[in-house]
Amino acid sequence: MSTLKVPDLVPPPEQDAKRLKEAFDGLGTDEKAVTWVLSQRTASQRQLIRQAYQRLYNESLIDNITSELSGDFKDAVIMWTLDPAERDAKMAKEALKKSKSGVKHLQVIVEISCASSPYHLAAVRQAYCALFDCSIEEDITAVVSMPLRKVLLRLVSSFRYDKELLDIEAAASEANQLHEAIKAKQLDHDQVVHILATRNFFQLKATFERYEQMHGSPIDEDISSVGKGNLVSLMKMVILCIRCPERHFAEVIRTSIVGFGTDEAALNRAIITRAEVDMKLIKEVYPIMYKNTLEDDVIGDTSGDYQDFLLTLTGSKF
Amino acid sequence: MSTLKVPDLVPPPEQDAKRLKEAFDGLGTDEKAVTWVLSQRTASQRQLIRQAYQRLYNESLIDNITSELSGDFKDAVIMWTLDPAERDAKMAKEALKKSKSGVKHLQVIVEISCASSPYHLAAVRQAYCALFDCSIEEDITAVVSMPLRKVLLRLVSSFRYDKELLDIEAAASEANQLHEAIKAKQLDHDQVVHILATRNFFQLKATFERYEQMHGSPIDEDISSVGKGNLVSLMKMVILCIRCPERHFAEVIRTSIVGFGTDEAALNRAIITRAEVDMKLIKEVYPIMYKNTLEDDVIGDTSGDYQDFLLTLTGSKF
Repeated sequence: MSTLKVPDLVPPPEQDAKRLKEAFDGLGTDEKAVTWVLSQRTASQRQLIRQAYQRLYNESLIDNITSELSGDFKDAVIMWTLDPAERDAKMAKEALKKSKSGVKHLQVIVEISCASSPYHLAAVRQAYCALFDCSIEEDITAVVSMPLRKVLLRLVSSFRYDKELLDIEAAASEANQLHEAIKAKQLDHDQVVHILATRNFFQLKATFERYEQMHGSPIDEDISSVGKGNLVSLMKMVILCIRCPERHFAEVIRTSIVGFGTDEAALNRAIITRAEVDMKLIKEVYPIMYKNTLEDDVIGDTSGDYQDFLLTLTGSKF
Repeated sequence: MSTLKVPDLVPPPEQDAKRLKEAFDGLGTDEKAVTWVLSQRTASQRQLIRQAYQRLYNESLIDNITSELSGDFKDAVIMWTLDPAERDAKMAKEALKKSKSGVKHLQVIVEISCASSPYHLAAVRQAYCALFDCSIEEDITAVVSMPLRKVLLRLVSSFRYDKELLDIEAAASEANQLHEAIKAKQLDHDQVVHILATRNFFQLKATFERYEQMHGSPIDEDISSVGKGNLVSLMKMVILCIRCPERHFAEVIRTSIVGFGTDEAALNRAIITRAEVDMKLIKEVYPIMYKNTLEDDVIGDTSGDYQDFLLTLTGSKF
């Protein structure tokens, strides 16, 4: 479900590294060449290019991107060039620093825990320790207050079974347990957190469907009826990321674009982290949710090399 | 701190595979050759031999060991030949099956969580999902009752920072929190579980030291004074595995040997899982704790090829 367009014949990483070095050298930078090379390579190919660049020129590709590009285009290209686990660990760190100013910043941690594979989550936890000299759990404990802390700690610690395997009886029984807790307005009840942080995504989707069949309304609506506040927002985000990650990311992109100005950090995050995951699906649900196509919205709010880069990642160029 | 004796010049894995095949073929099995080859290879070398064997003979090395060897020797060689993460996942599964018959069986889960690197624990969780179609957390939830379940779930979900980095103030403050909870007989208090399942091992050792300085007795003694029962046993095991894994494993070996008969499963587990980790330290503390040397105790309770194999792993042969 990736929108990446990788050519049939991919040049050796040394050749890509050389092309990038030429784009940086001399008067002015050839931004088009940077987009041309990097936006058509998979995550593992990009890491090979980064290594080849370091080997050939004894310089860091990330450092050279930082000094040669600028603005939103620079930020997007750096995010895209980092190893995905390293990138998400850095985003999680930034998010935790800003979390005091709003629960919205914790979105990225929910996305890593609830809309990624268990292998990716494990790699992010490992990268976080390597980069920041403490575990992500320790940072969550230090800056997020209860009850959000309890929920996030369990979510980031999960390692879910990742194949499609359903236990229909368990789905019914756990749908009931979720319903009881929501009725009692106990969204952070141990059992709720346990179910959401332990069960595999297929099982949870079945549980949410069963919930709706048995109790007449979707689980996220019932959560909304508990009231307002950070825990309600967080739990709705968790449910959406598990049930329908493409709708969640369509929402992130739309929110980053509507209104005055653009939230480039959120726009980059959604497009860059999902281009190789489910961008095709995001592009399908987007016009159903918002009438416009995703491309039209991106074109309306961005320009120049930055726009070209994002459109290439979403499969709308080349 | 490994006791493995790997020759300076290790033969290519194909040659080792061939030597093993010859040992199995023909009338009778050459057990000495099996020990000779496998007991002097590291975990990654053993995996290469396993792959070469499969490639050369289109047969599984594990299957051939199973059909050609017998008794305790067979069990030990199989455990040793499996990939360490796969081996520990299988041991955890077995332990959970037996856990109804006593908390002692949960030892192996504490060892994987509290006496292994975070990378190994992550690999075991991954292997568990791949082998058993559910996560280790789901199996713990299904068979272990509260409050042990709560403690084990948090321990197996940890991914601790793995370098030496201490926060002395946090050690003092968390030593106090542990002391308050123990005084109130709340060993499964959220904060206790959180500290033990989140902090890195160096930090926890400092916390336990600070505990003793501030409150006059070691934390495990204070836990014992809470009473008897499964939670007390489990928490003492957790503290020992974190504070001094070599003493824990010395105890596992000694307990497997003393009294009537030998608990070969426990003896194998301790020697095989620790040979490449800290067997040198275990051998040092053993005579201090029990007067006998570890070798003398192993010799007293085992015989033949099985004895030779264990002694080779503990660095006492060849």
